[in-house]
Amino acid sequence: MATNVVPGADPDAPLPHSVQGIKRDAHPFSRPQLEGLMTKRFFYTQAFEIYGGVAGLYDYGPTGASLQANIISAWRQHFILEEEMLELDTTIMTLSDVLKTSGHVDKFADWMCKDPKTGEIFRADHLVEGVLEARLKGNEEARKAEGGGETGAKKEQAVPAEGGQDDKKAKKKKAKSAIVKLDDAVVEEYESVLAQIDNYTGKELGDLIRKFEIKAPESGNEVSEPVEFNLMFETSIGPTGQVKGYLRPETAQGHFVNFGRLLDFNNGRVPFASAHVGKSFRNEISPRAGLLRVREFTMAEIEHYVDPLEKDHDRFDETAGLTLAFLPKDVQQSGKSDLSHITIGEAVKSGMVDNQTLGYFLGRIHLFLLKIGIDPKRLRFRQHMANEMAHYASDCWDAEIQTSYGWIECVGCADRSAYDLTVHSKKTKKDLIVRKALSEPRVYDKLVPVIEKKLLGPKFKKDAKAVEEAIMDLSEEQLEVLKSHLENGTAKVKAGEQSFEVTPELVKVEKRTIRESVREFTPNVIEPSFGIGRIFYALLEHSFWAREDDKDRGVLSLPSLVAPIKALVVPISSNDKLAPLVKEVSRKLRAKGISSRVDDSSATIGRRYSRNDELGTPFACTLDFASLSKGTMTLRERDSTSQRIGSVDEVIAVIKEMCDGTISWEGACERLPAYSGEQSLD
Amino acid sequence: MATNVVPGADPDAPLPHSVQGIKRDAHPFSRPQLEGLMTKRFFYTQAFEIYGGVAGLYDYGPTGASLQANIISAWRQHFILEEEMLELDTTIMTLSDVLKTSGHVDKFADWMCKDPKTGEIFRADHLVEGVLEARLKGNEEARKAEGGGETGAKKEQAVPAEGGQDDKKAKKKKAKSAIVKLDDAVVEEYESVLAQIDNYTGKELGDLIRKFEIKAPESGNEVSEPVEFNLMFETSIGPTGQVKGYLRPETAQGHFVNFGRLLDFNNGRVPFASAHVGKSFRNEISPRAGLLRVREFTMAEIEHYVDPLEKDHDRFDETAGLTLAFLPKDVQQSGKSDLSHITIGEAVKSGMVDNQTLGYFLGRIHLFLLKIGIDPKRLRFRQHMANEMAHYASDCWDAEIQTSYGWIECVGCADRSAYDLTVHSKKTKKDLIVRKALSEPRVYDKLVPVIEKKLLGPKFKKDAKAVEEAIMDLSEEQLEVLKSHLENGTAKVKAGEQSFEVTPELVKVEKRTIRESVREFTPNVIEPSFGIGRIFYALLEHSFWAREDDKDRGVLSLPSLVAPIKALVVPISSNDKLAPLVKEVSRKLRAKGISSRVDDSSATIGRRYSRNDELGTPFACTLDFASLSKGTMTLRERDSTSQRIGSVDEVIAVIKEMCDGTISWEGACERLPAYSGEQSLD
Repeated sequence: MATNVVPGADPDAPLPHSVQGIKRDAHPFSRPQLEGLMTKRFFYTQAFEIYGGVAGLYDYGPTGASLQANIISAWRQHFILEEEMLELDTTIMTLSDVLKTSGHVDKFADWMCKDPKTGEIFRADHLVEGVLEARLKGNEEARKAEGGGETGAKKEQAVPAEGGQDDKKAKKKKAKSAIVKLDDAVVEEYESVLAQIDNYTGKELGDLIRKFEIKAPESGNEVSEPVEFNLMFETSIGPTGQVKGYLRPETAQGHFVNFGRLLDFNNGRVPFASAHVGKSFRNEISPRAGLLRVREFTMAEIEHYVDPLEKDHDRFDETAGLTLAFLPKDVQQSGKSDLSHITIGEAVKSGMVDNQTLGYFLGRIHLFLLKIGIDPKRLRFRQHMANEMAHYASDCWDAEIQTSYGWIECVGCADRSAYDLTVHSKKTKKDLIVRKALSEPRVYDKLVPVIEKKLLGPKFKKDAKAVEEAIMDLSEEQLEVLKSHLENGTAKVKAGEQSFEVTPELVKVEKRTIRESVREFTPNVIEPSFGIGRIFYALLEHSFWAREDDKDRGVLSLPSLVAPIKALVVPISSNDKLAPLVKEVSRKLRAKGISSRVDDSSATIGRRYSRNDELGTPFACTLDFASLSKGTMTLRERDSTSQRIGSVDEVIAVIKEMCDGTISWEGACERLPAYSGEQSLD
Repeated sequence: MATNVVPGADPDAPLPHSVQGIKRDAHPFSRPQLEGLMTKRFFYTQAFEIYGGVAGLYDYGPTGASLQANIISAWRQHFILEEEMLELDTTIMTLSDVLKTSGHVDKFADWMCKDPKTGEIFRADHLVEGVLEARLKGNEEARKAEGGGETGAKKEQAVPAEGGQDDKKAKKKKAKSAIVKLDDAVVEEYESVLAQIDNYTGKELGDLIRKFEIKAPESGNEVSEPVEFNLMFETSIGPTGQVKGYLRPETAQGHFVNFGRLLDFNNGRVPFASAHVGKSFRNEISPRAGLLRVREFTMAEIEHYVDPLEKDHDRFDETAGLTLAFLPKDVQQSGKSDLSHITIGEAVKSGMVDNQTLGYFLGRIHLFLLKIGIDPKRLRFRQHMANEMAHYASDCWDAEIQTSYGWIECVGCADRSAYDLTVHSKKTKKDLIVRKALSEPRVYDKLVPVIEKKLLGPKFKKDAKAVEEAIMDLSEEQLEVLKSHLENGTAKVKAGEQSFEVTPELVKVEKRTIRESVREFTPNVIEPSFGIGRIFYALLEHSFWAREDDKDRGVLSLPSLVAPIKALVVPISSNDKLAPLVKEVSRKLRAKGISSRVDDSSATIGRRYSRNDELGTPFACTLDFASLSKGTMTLRERDSTSQRIGSVDEVIAVIKEMCDGTISWEGACERLPAYSGEQSLD
C-alpha cells in the first residue's frame, strides 16, 4: 500500500527508537508487514469479514483484546486508583434531549460532498487534503527527477466514502499523484492549507475546492457544495416510536447528567474527577485509516470538576519539571510546526498552557503514554487553534502520536469551562452547582429590579409573565441601562421577539446591599479524553520491528505491563517425560497471575521463539532434561534474545517481579546467571 | 411498593441465609429500603434522571461501577484464565445481514397488545401474567378472610408499556387485585398457565386473553390481538442510508463470524472456547423491574466449540460430585416446580442433562455464583421446556436466582448444536468446519446422484440449475427413495415451490465406496451466557440486611472479592496529629492494590462504621493515639462488628490475605488478638 510518509516514519528510514533500553537492529518499518502480523496473529480484523466487512468496524481477537484490556487496566491504575477518581458506567443509548442540550444534535457534524453523477460521497476536508497531498507528492517526484528538495507532512488519505462493505474496492480509488512540478508559491500555499485543514468551515472548504479545482479523484467530476452530515447513529427507544435516542458520541454527557449525585457522593466538595471507560460511536462519512478512524471505539474519559477561581493543582509540582514537546497555536496559525521543548512549569507560567490543572494532566498523560510503551520522540502536544476549538472551551491540547499515517490525535485535553453543566442545568431547571462556605462573608451592592405586579399584570395581560421574566433575567449592566432610562421616563424591555414599554410606576431598579456567607458556582471541567484504539494502534507501530537476520518475521517489543501474554512455556522436545513439568510450570505461573501460553508443537525451538516474538511475549521459559534432573529452567528475554538460568521457582519469581515492574531485565540478570547452552548438558 | 412475594423472599420472613459463615440478625427484607440505599450511596440510578429518566436504562455510580467491575474481574479469573479461553472484543454495531442469517431479524420479537382506545401498549405475556396473578392474590385475600390457604409463585408485574420517560406514572397503573374468591379448579388452571407463561405463542396468548376475559388493567378496554415487535434497535451505517445495522442483542454472533480465525489461532483443534464481556441491547416493550429488565446491559458470554461426537469433558470429574437444585422440564410441563437435589454426575448419567460438557458448565456456573456471594439456597437450575427453547437447541438450562421479584433467569446455558456456524457458513459460502485426522481411515458406502447435465439442461432450461441443486442437496434417505422410484420409472424432485419429473436417463443414483482419512465436521456450541446486571442485582438482595439494633440502616455483606471498597480508614478524631498516619496507611493499602477510602469527617466513629456497612466495605482500620505511640491499628470486620488489633503492617498484611482469599476472618483472628477497647488507652 503506497502512502505518503512523515519524517521519522518514512518506510525507508531506520526505526528511530529503542524501548526498554535495548537497541534494536535497524530495519525499515513496513505497514503492510505489521498489518499482516495483526491478521495472522488475530490482534484485530475487520468486523463481519466473512460477510465482506464493514468499513470502520473492527473486532479484536484474543491477542488484541488482551493488549487492549491491559492498556485499560494500566489506565485505571494510573488515573482512577492513583488519583481516587469516581468511576462511572453510564448508558451508550442516549436520550435525544440530552444531546440536543449539549449541542451535538445541531453541531456534531462533518462536511460532505457528493459526486452528483456517480453518487459517491466524500468527506470534504479529506478530499481537499488527499488531492493537495497527491499534488505535493507528484511535485516532489518531479523535483526528485530534477534533483530537487522534499516537502510537507501529511495526515490521512482522502478516499471516497462508503457506508458499504467493501474496503478493498475503495482503496483502489485513492487520489492518484500525477508527476507535475508546482511553483514554489503554490507548494507553500498548499502546505499552509494542510497545516490548517482542521480549521475550515464548510463554506471555506467549498471555496478551496473551487479555488484549487479539486474534482472527484476517480471520476474527475465536479463535486457538490459541502453539506453537513450529523455523525451520530440515531434510533428509536421503545415500541411507540416517540422517544428518539442516539448512540453516545462521547461518554462526557453521561458524567454531566450525573453531576449532582457525584457531588453528593464527594460530600459536596470540589475538586474531584469522574472517569469512564466505554464504547462510543461516530457514524464516520469515510472511515479509511484502519483503527485510526472507526465508527465504534473505546474511550477513556475523565471529567475533573474544579472551582473556576482555583485552577491551581495540589500535585502540580510532581509534573511541573517534565519537559514536553509543545506545538502552540500561534506557531500553527503561521503555517509552521516547530516544537517547543520546555517544562510544564514554564508553559503554565508563560500562559501558553492556561492553568496548572490543565498542565498537570498534560504531564500525567505524557507519563501514562510512556509507561505503556509510546516512544517519547514521537509524541507531541498540539494546541487547538481558535476555530478548531469548541466555542466554549478556554484551552485545548491534543497529545498527538506519530505513526505511518502522520501525527494522530490520541488524547484530547480540554478545559470545557462551565459550558456543559450550565446548559444542562438551564434546560432541566436542576441546580448543578457547588456551594462553598466563604472564610469571611462577602458584602456588595447589587442592582435589583422591583416589579409592581398589580399594575404590570393588567397592563400587559397575557404577555405579563414574559415581560416579568425578561426583566428578572437582565444582567447587572442591562439593569444599569434600564435604571437610567427609567430615570428619564420610559424604557423598552425586549421579551422574545416583542418589545414592551415600561414606566417607573411598573418597575423600579434599586441598589441593595447583599451579604453572602456561601459562594455558589458552576464548576469548570478539565477533560482528558483518550482514544484507546488509536493509542493501541500507535503503540503497535512503535513496538514493531524485525531482526536483521530474520526480516520477514516481526518482533513486537511491548512492555511486559501491557503484553497480551507474559510468558511462553516451551519444552525442548516433545518427549513425554517433560509434559508433567510443563503443566506444573503453567500452573505455577497462573497461580501468580502471570498469563502464559504453552507451545509444545513440533516446530524448532527457534521457530517457536519467533512465533512468540510476533505475539509480543516478553519472556520464554524453556524446559529441558536438566529441568528434570536439576529443577532448572532457562529464561529468554524477547528483545535481546539473551538467556539466563535458575531454579524453576526462582525464574518464576523473577518474571513476576519484572511484570510488576519492581525489577528490570538488568535486575533479573543480577539474580540469574547467564545461560551458556552447556548447563543443560551435564 | 406493594408486590407479590415468593416463599423465602417474603418481606415478613427472616432473612434465610448467612454469608461467610457469620449469622446475621433476623430482620425482614425490604425492597424499598434496599432501593433507597442504592440511590443514596450511588450504586445505580435511572439514566438521564435530571431529564425525567428513560425506562430500562440505568447508570452505575462509583460504588456500583466498582462492584460490577469486580464481578467481571472474578468472572474473567474463574472462566477465561482458569480455562484458557480466547477473549474477544467485537463490535456492538452489527451488519443486518448477519442478524438476518442468525434468525434475529425475523424471530427476535415479543408479542404486544394495544389498548386501541388509549394507545397503551402491553407485552402480551406480562399482561396475562399480571392479571392472573392479581386475581390469585385477590382470591388469597378472600380466602384468608375466611381462614383459607395460600397459593402460587409469581414473576414480574404486568404494567403498561411506555417508551417514555416517566416510570412513576406507569407504576400507578398496575393490575389491581379485587378481593374475589375463585373456584379451586380456576386457581389450578391459572397456576398451570403461570408455570408455562414463557411457553406460549402469540396466538395462544390471544386465546388466553379471550378465554380469561383479560382487559387493559387501567382502562378496562379490550386489547388487540398480540402482534410481534422486534426487540432490536435499528440504525443506518454510513451516509448513504443503504447499509442497515442493528445493535447486537447478544455477543454470540460476534464469536461465530470470527470462528475461522479463532480456530486458526487454536491451531485448528477443538474443543476450545471464546469469551466476550460487553454491552448488548434489547428494545424491551415494557421494562419495569429495575435492573432485571433493561434495554442496555452487560453480558459475559462463552461459546465452547466441541466435536458433536465427543461431548464428554476432560475436567468433568471436578464438578460431577456437586449437588445442584434442578428443575427439569417434565416437572414444569406438569405444572409443578419441585426441585431435584442430585449431583451433576447423576443428572448427566440419567440423561436429564444432555451431556458432560453441559453438566460441567452448570457446575462451573454454580461455583462462580457462590464465589461472588449468591445464596446457594436461592439458586436453582431450570430446564427449558420444548416450546421455550430455540428450535435448534438440543438442551438448555437457566441458572435462576430467587429475588423479591421471584425466580429470575441470570445465566443461560444452552447447547446451540451446530446451528449458528452452519447457517453462517451456508450464507457466506465460507467453511466453518473442523478437520480431524482419523486414527484409521473410514471406509463406507454412500449413495451418489449422477446427473446427465447434457440432457438435464435442455430439458428444464431456466429451472435446470435449481433442479440440479435440489438433487445434490438430497439426504441419504431421500436418495434411497429417489433410487427406488427411478428403478420403477420416473420420480419427482421438488425445487423451491415447484415439482419436476425426472427419468433414469437424466439422473442415476449409484452406490460408491468412500474412503476418508480426515473427518470434517461443524462443531457444536455450548453457550453459558451471563446477564451481569441481573446477577449484580440478585447479589445485592442476597447481601442486604439490617442489624436488629439499627433497623433503618442497611448492611451489604458483600464478599471482599467483589466489595467496591475493601477497607475504610478512620482516624478516631480529627486531631491533626493523626493526619500523616492516615495518609501513610492509605498509601500502604494502595501499594498492595487494596482499594480504600478515608472517612475523616466529624461524624461519630459508630456512624462512620455504619456508613461503611452501607457501602459493603468488609474491613475498617481505625487509627487512634496508640497508633502514634505504639504503631498499632484496630481492624473491624463488617458482618460480626468484632475488632482485632495489631501493628499497622501486620493488619494490612492480614487484609491483603483476606482479599486474596488465602485466609478467612477466622484465620485473621488467629493472627491478630481481640481488641478489648483498652489497648489504645495505655
